[in-house]
Amino acid sequence: MAAGRFITFEGGEGSGKSTQARRLAERLREVGIDVLLTREPGGSPFAEQIRGLLLGGTLAPHPPIAEALLFFAARADHLETTIRPALAAGRWVICDRFADSTRAYQGAAGGVPAQSLDMLEQLVIGTSGPDATFILDIDARTGLARATRRREAIEGTEIDPFESRALAFHERLRQGYLAIAAAEPRRCVLVDASSGVEPIAKGIWQTVSQRFAGDIR
Amino acid sequence: MAAGRFITFEGGEGSGKSTQARRLAERLREVGIDVLLTREPGGSPFAEQIRGLLLGGTLAPHPPIAEALLFFAARADHLETTIRPALAAGRWVICDRFADSTRAYQGAAGGVPAQSLDMLEQLVIGTSGPDATFILDIDARTGLARATRRREAIEGTEIDPFESRALAFHERLRQGYLAIAAAEPRRCVLVDASSGVEPIAKGIWQTVSQRFAGDIR
Repeated sequence: MAAGRFITFEGGEGSGKSTQARRLAERLREVGIDVLLTREPGGSPFAEQIRGLLLGGTLAPHPPIAEALLFFAARADHLETTIRPALAAGRWVICDRFADSTRAYQGAAGGVPAQSLDMLEQLVIGTSGPDATFILDIDARTGLARATRRREAIEGTEIDPFESRALAFHERLRQGYLAIAAAEPRRCVLVDASSGVEPIAKGIWQTVSQRFAGDIR
Repeated sequence: MAAGRFITFEGGEGSGKSTQARRLAERLREVGIDVLLTREPGGSPFAEQIRGLLLGGTLAPHPPIAEALLFFAARADHLETTIRPALAAGRWVICDRFADSTRAYQGAAGGVPAQSLDMLEQLVIGTSGPDATFILDIDARTGLARATRRREAIEGTEIDPFESRALAFHERLRQGYLAIAAAEPRRCVLVDASSGVEPIAKGIWQTVSQRFAGDIR
């Protein structure tokens, strides 16, 4: 049995990546592929507990290196207990955020040196990195406005500590994502996230069905 | 103003390190030194939250690399918000457990490669490592029996996930500590923890007052 494919979705607040991750999972299921849709931080019971620590409660900013280590701790558990077993069983894994989020948030926007993140990726991910990554690119101001509208539409949804940071933080974040896309053009596909859900989903499906043509009947 | 000194206490369950850390802090205060007594995991609000995740609740073993990353995340925050500022202000810092615990528990006993822990130490601790470390050595069976008696004597104290592991784990732990003491004889002082509290405290004070004679009036 062939190992499954691992596809991640990345982008800033309000970029629409969660919607697109879900859409791709549905589309793959339509063609008979067994898909695990998961997310970070989280995706396993222990990693979800760590997520609670990172996104819940206090708004106080923590040292970015401490945050990066927590994200990688969650990622190590997620890989070990969820992602690697699913891939080994031939399932496809679609993950809403992965290591590029740490590069963008704690690295480009938070100031953790790229070299430290290289080291952590090598330690935790090794050869289990994604086969393809869709980076949904959106102007920081537009993305934040979208995220705010979404939050206000759902009662009881609180702003999370990352969303609440200043616009300048979100602009560094966007530049971080653009740099990742430029540095790894074989893995990363940069998607203009300013258009509608349907055309974006169509474009992503086109890329996936071409790139993994041999795996899709 | 001279920077303070950083002294850590290490050892397995029931080795008496917390008692000896407290005793040394009291003795230093008697000679007029401003001491911060702290502990790991914990020692800062965020690190204490991570401690709760590591030691509270579930007994399920997590991947040792995920545990190691969590301990280092807590350590990064502890160093940044508590230890480095105290040392810079000229205070002495005495810490009950530090990085050698991760080497012994997740490394020697848990199987995380020494090279990975070297990398994490370099990333998080850099040049902020302890000036001296007392490793309290005790036979694993004797230490566990002591820890059990102590827990049973305090109502409502629950066994923590590390204490509950098999004797073989605690024997690997002890060997891990002995290896650290052998590898870094300038920093580490191996203490026979099978004798009484008083003679051990006396021996530790003798070492500290000799080693840091210039700092102690």
